[in-house]
Amino acid sequence: MIDPRVASGLRDLPPAQAVPRERMLKVLREVFGRFGFLPIETPHIERVEVLTGKGAGSDEVLRQIFDVTNKGGTAGELALRFDLTVPLARFIAKHVEQLGTPFKRYAIGSVFRGERPAKGRFREFTQCDFDTVGSESVVSDAETAQVIHDSLQAMGVPSFVIAINNRRILDGLLETFGVESRKAAVLRSLDKLAKVGREAVLAGLHRGEAEGGAGLAETQAEGVLRFVESGRGGLEVLDAVQGTLGSNPSAAAGLENLRAVLGLLAAAGVPEGRVVVDLGLARGLDYYTGIVFETTVTGWERFGSIASGGRYDNLASLFTTRRLPGVGASIGLDRLLALLEEAGWLGGSISTAPVLVAQFPGTELSVVFSAAARLRTAGVGAELFPEPIAIGKQMGYGSTRGHRFGLIIGPDEATAGVFNLRDLKTRQERKGLPLADLEAIVASALNEPA
Amino acid sequence: MIDPRVASGLRDLPPAQAVPRERMLKVLREVFGRFGFLPIETPHIERVEVLTGKGAGSDEVLRQIFDVTNKGGTAGELALRFDLTVPLARFIAKHVEQLGTPFKRYAIGSVFRGERPAKGRFREFTQCDFDTVGSESVVSDAETAQVIHDSLQAMGVPSFVIAINNRRILDGLLETFGVESRKAAVLRSLDKLAKVGREAVLAGLHRGEAEGGAGLAETQAEGVLRFVESGRGGLEVLDAVQGTLGSNPSAAAGLENLRAVLGLLAAAGVPEGRVVVDLGLARGLDYYTGIVFETTVTGWERFGSIASGGRYDNLASLFTTRRLPGVGASIGLDRLLALLEEAGWLGGSISTAPVLVAQFPGTELSVVFSAAARLRTAGVGAELFPEPIAIGKQMGYGSTRGHRFGLIIGPDEATAGVFNLRDLKTRQERKGLPLADLEAIVASALNEPA
Repeated sequence: MIDPRVASGLRDLPPAQAVPRERMLKVLREVFGRFGFLPIETPHIERVEVLTGKGAGSDEVLRQIFDVTNKGGTAGELALRFDLTVPLARFIAKHVEQLGTPFKRYAIGSVFRGERPAKGRFREFTQCDFDTVGSESVVSDAETAQVIHDSLQAMGVPSFVIAINNRRILDGLLETFGVESRKAAVLRSLDKLAKVGREAVLAGLHRGEAEGGAGLAETQAEGVLRFVESGRGGLEVLDAVQGTLGSNPSAAAGLENLRAVLGLLAAAGVPEGRVVVDLGLARGLDYYTGIVFETTVTGWERFGSIASGGRYDNLASLFTTRRLPGVGASIGLDRLLALLEEAGWLGGSISTAPVLVAQFPGTELSVVFSAAARLRTAGVGAELFPEPIAIGKQMGYGSTRGHRFGLIIGPDEATAGVFNLRDLKTRQERKGLPLADLEAIVASALNEPA
Repeated sequence: MIDPRVASGLRDLPPAQAVPRERMLKVLREVFGRFGFLPIETPHIERVEVLTGKGAGSDEVLRQIFDVTNKGGTAGELALRFDLTVPLARFIAKHVEQLGTPFKRYAIGSVFRGERPAKGRFREFTQCDFDTVGSESVVSDAETAQVIHDSLQAMGVPSFVIAINNRRILDGLLETFGVESRKAAVLRSLDKLAKVGREAVLAGLHRGEAEGGAGLAETQAEGVLRFVESGRGGLEVLDAVQGTLGSNPSAAAGLENLRAVLGLLAAAGVPEGRVVVDLGLARGLDYYTGIVFETTVTGWERFGSIASGGRYDNLASLFTTRRLPGVGASIGLDRLLALLEEAGWLGGSISTAPVLVAQFPGTELSVVFSAAARLRTAGVGAELFPEPIAIGKQMGYGSTRGHRFGLIIGPDEATAGVFNLRDLKTRQERKGLPLADLEAIVASALNEPA
């Protein structure tokens, strides 16, 4: 016998997890589509040269790449993708002439990283990305937040906050200190604030560049940190720093961008407080150049951001000379599902068909087979139990699986042209319902509150 | 610059291909769900031991496996799955105690085979499988054909034939000749009939086993071949061989099974002629033990079968001592899409949002931003063009992408509280429509025949 285990760091998703996941994906596809984002697909396997060229991957990510070789192939040529951003850049560079811009795409798929396996961390996970490429418009910035908002709302997340910031504000701050060349190191330090605390970040900002710090003077470090700590909120946060930074062109542009985004989102009816300015929002990746986004579920902040992204100046510089600015975000489906499950918010039956049609011993099979087919034609999911075992056992299968009703037609009912409908939760059974009206009766019963 | 090409044998799917594909997948998930099939997911990466243990893979498939290694991992331990059947067997063996039987699952995902690249043949392709495991009921046999039927109908395939046969009929025939031990070789020969023709198959059946043939006597070979050529049709095909084979218990059981399946499908309203008996249907895989299915699109038979499957006695014997009979099929989505495209049946716009909201230069951005949001809230897909370029160019973008209407609000319209709606095909424009009734007017326009 071969041990049926999965490899370390990988996992199976049985229906209890795959059904809610499929529902979420359906919602995401619908929301993305409603905004005019179009799906694309790229292979799971890319050429190593494409993946390691530079891309969004940090060195750590590159070390985690899975190499792929087939018999007769050469090792070191192919690998599994570690995100959907590098494949997007390659895709756009290859197809942009035919596709034109602006190009709005979404992509949903597995990515692979050979991380050390740990609780809640898997070597294969799903990314759900959407991007608007070829536009520098604030419309696309605001829309990115709006898509995150509408997605989470449609997925039933009760309360969440989308934090926004603009890299150019920090750029302006660093310029006023004359230390704009230290930006990457500053971002790396600031990004650790929640994790390591104020003192450690201050030390990191101050530490020399040779020792992996940002090399700021103590007063500069204190100034940068105090700035990013200046709080979260609406327009008042922007107003508060307008005086200090408004005269710097970078910062002024960043502040103006966030103001416009808040205005557009209000016009679109996004409730106040759902999108807040957080001048401390850094996001480690240094390829963002404008607005950045992070999203936390209220009361579940410890799960980290479940939807993040930002604006970039040039997506595909490794693959084409054509400059392609854009903005996008990624919804962390696996993390969100883990959160919803732990919070008890997943709810809903895992059954895909609400009616279980029983197979009564002695009833002509064609009677139940056609009853199930009629329900499906009427748009009602109906599962026919395949074996004529004891009715109690068939109903037990339905209760466990989460079917709402059991439909029973014994030989007497078949002769009389009637059926019985059992509520699998209350165990109440309506008897002798006319089979001629099957579809209408079941549809009406399903419309009653459960 | 890095060349943005994909690796040999792989491909990108831009929206023109990904949109219809996504629509098909949505239909499949809905149909599978309506029958009570539940989704599961397994990793793309499996342990090599699991994949090569035996499974459904022929030696040829095993030679085509892609090995996967990460830094620090050991070569030869992991590989990409080459189908969804072996992962199902492993999954069932691992989880059957919690899941119970019958277990009806579907799985949709990429599989990988290092085949020599050729036109229409890719190293990564999608399989869409559904199986009922843990039941030997004829209900599940008939339902498998019904799911294929309902899927193809829902996907808009105008005319197709599902051919069915039962392996036990051929078993009975071979038993009457006393050559049942040659079954695998006989199946291999018969499977080539369409490709190599009658004489070559006869020669193969007759050729000695040492030379890769089935080793039948000439009269036996002729008998077997004449039998499988006995035609396609309904019950009359079964009646025609009842006399010759009905006294053999295997053949009798097989004939009885097909009779019952035809009866159930008729009861479910599947049109006559959609499912036909074809005693010559062999299907190469020798793990099928009962009913087998193949599906061709009328007039496009050269594309081969687009939905195939069958019943097996024991799915997971490599992984568990528990006997798990079942039946299932696989829908060949890539092949079907290629066929539909070539036949010109794909149709439909590739846009996911029917309305393109233009950004008129000079109009307050919040006016169009909120108009787009209102449409989406009302369930109407609306894409807002991100840049205030010339209206003609924006409308051109919409025509190319397949948006149906352009929504235009110039500064004058904004002041007057009205909007214009341009049909992007006819170029007719309705002007001065009240913005207060935006949702109702657009929904009603979308309901008009295009």
